[in-house]
Amino acid sequence: MTTIQDVAALAGVSVSSVSNVLNGRTERLGRETYRRVEEAIRQLNYRPNLVARQLKTGNAPLLGLLVPSTANPMFGELAVHVEKAASERHGYRVLLGNTHRDPEQEARMFDDLLSQGVRGVILASSRTDEGHLNNAIGRGLAVVSYDRGGNGEPDSRIDHVSPDNMKAARLAVEHLAEQGHRRLALATPDVKTISRTLKRAGFLDAAAAAGLEDEAQVIEGATSPDFGDSSLADVGYRLAGRIAGMARRPTAIITINDMMALGLMAGLQAAGLSVPRDISVVGMDNLVLCAYVNPPLTSVDMPSGDMARCMVDMLMQRLAQPDAPAREVLFQPSLVKRASVAPPPAGALGAIPRITRKKKA
Amino acid sequence: MTTIQDVAALAGVSVSSVSNVLNGRTERLGRETYRRVEEAIRQLNYRPNLVARQLKTGNAPLLGLLVPSTANPMFGELAVHVEKAASERHGYRVLLGNTHRDPEQEARMFDDLLSQGVRGVILASSRTDEGHLNNAIGRGLAVVSYDRGGNGEPDSRIDHVSPDNMKAARLAVEHLAEQGHRRLALATPDVKTISRTLKRAGFLDAAAAAGLEDEAQVIEGATSPDFGDSSLADVGYRLAGRIAGMARRPTAIITINDMMALGLMAGLQAAGLSVPRDISVVGMDNLVLCAYVNPPLTSVDMPSGDMARCMVDMLMQRLAQPDAPAREVLFQPSLVKRASVAPPPAGALGAIPRITRKKKA
Repeated sequence: MTTIQDVAALAGVSVSSVSNVLNGRTERLGRETYRRVEEAIRQLNYRPNLVARQLKTGNAPLLGLLVPSTANPMFGELAVHVEKAASERHGYRVLLGNTHRDPEQEARMFDDLLSQGVRGVILASSRTDEGHLNNAIGRGLAVVSYDRGGNGEPDSRIDHVSPDNMKAARLAVEHLAEQGHRRLALATPDVKTISRTLKRAGFLDAAAAAGLEDEAQVIEGATSPDFGDSSLADVGYRLAGRIAGMARRPTAIITINDMMALGLMAGLQAAGLSVPRDISVVGMDNLVLCAYVNPPLTSVDMPSGDMARCMVDMLMQRLAQPDAPAREVLFQPSLVKRASVAPPPAGALGAIPRITRKKKA
Repeated sequence: MTTIQDVAALAGVSVSSVSNVLNGRTERLGRETYRRVEEAIRQLNYRPNLVARQLKTGNAPLLGLLVPSTANPMFGELAVHVEKAASERHGYRVLLGNTHRDPEQEARMFDDLLSQGVRGVILASSRTDEGHLNNAIGRGLAVVSYDRGGNGEPDSRIDHVSPDNMKAARLAVEHLAEQGHRRLALATPDVKTISRTLKRAGFLDAAAAAGLEDEAQVIEGATSPDFGDSSLADVGYRLAGRIAGMARRPTAIITINDMMALGLMAGLQAAGLSVPRDISVVGMDNLVLCAYVNPPLTSVDMPSGDMARCMVDMLMQRLAQPDAPAREVLFQPSLVKRASVAPPPAGALGAIPRITRKKKA
């Protein structure tokens, strides 16, 4: 059984330095010390003694992960990354909660986590206000918020980790503009979240910067009351029918995520349109599946593995120093080009007749 | 705050009957009593007091869910169903572990769960033996095993819940035979699991029953050492290249799951073959995404919501009666027809020339 002493000896540092790394008190450590400890932990496959730690701290070595739904592979993949980082880097296990974007569910889950001795939560929330979070923090919970962005309040104790959503939209717009598209649309569900609002702003800004503001539009897909993340593909599918029937149809569509893009492509194809010959599509998230759909989907990669590791480390630091000032980290997205984008069809800049190849349902 | 007394009053039963339902001691209850209690719990939105329960029992109201990887949407969807059933029906939260089909990971997770006061685990394991499970059970863990099937040992204390994998393969074979296919293949990764072995047996049996045994074959896709469930699509993709180059190519392929089918379709299309015109494909799992790929994927539905609820209830019963005889429940799959299956191409029963439309990489 490897001990903390073994790790310290291999890294050539003190036991308390190793303990600082394990407990997220990294701000006092030099970068080189941190690197050596991490390397020694990895080499020795060291795992802290959980029971001893729990007895000492009174808290469970568990962190909560609340996401809308792991049925959306984006969150399924994020859960894999968070769980791996939590267990390998800190000996923590992950308590999973699917909130289905229901604020009451979310509040109940906070209660349960607190009653189970969990003190740290990574939260992918749909809510735009932070009131319910501040309440939970007042009761002892440390929160790292995913994909929301901070509200800039100086006394906030909520750390934020997000992809740069505005830039994500800009990358998509610039790619389409380079391909010659002049009539762009952003497709989004009519339920607003912070990240969707940022994508929308980034889309409109980038369209204006490219001189395309006159024909850039945001198209909202209707969601049903029991809308869940597994219905995002369906929202995209139904939206495609509307888009196919437009008199001046966009020649390219950016969607706020890949699930919606997959549904949109299916709907466009069902309406008799070919992607990318008649219309180009760009998704966001870069799911593993993007490479395997027909046509393969061009998508903006959000670095979910890097973000997961960052969130887990920040949460450990927050648990160690609950009163430290809040931090916000933005991760850089990147465009992954595949076959769902092509130049616009010839003549697309004039009026496009309504398609008649296939009747819509 | 709703109490257990309120539930008992509304249901018109004793408090101890409600308690029996909550703690999974349902075998002593009449079906009608059970139904009334469930209905009252639902109407009153009753949630048991977790802290009180934990103080009383010494155990955390947590269950472990170990799956290969939630990056495979099949397990992402299962996790949603398990978590919902655990919290709504029993006030339990779910501890998630992604094992990446690594036996050492799995063993370490058992250790961690036990050290965290978790006494019940739902396990989707890749291992064919149950030795490590019996060890964990000896240390106090209750285990419900997903998609493995029991080994028939009379003193086993492991409950099993699975779809009928042999029947799933049979449904796919029968559908293809009805469409006129005579040269079928089952595509599977070369890593064996119990469910894949059953699907293989079901495939071969059904092919023989349809008089197609001479031309039925199992094609194994090579996996890399760091093979994970998110690579299943890639295994299918690479296998497609091999299949496209076969002198006597199968006219229809059944895959052991949808992720592999999606990769296979992409690979066939990249090799210049059209699905279903040149070759038909049937997946298994019936992921939400099947309806949104091109062409929409015919797939055998495994009722994951029903199986999740059954597993959670069985786990609660097992926690209440650790020494009860092991049970095994098989769930019935059903075929969902979409557009990835068509009759075989004319002349397909003769020799098929190697395709030359597109060079393979």
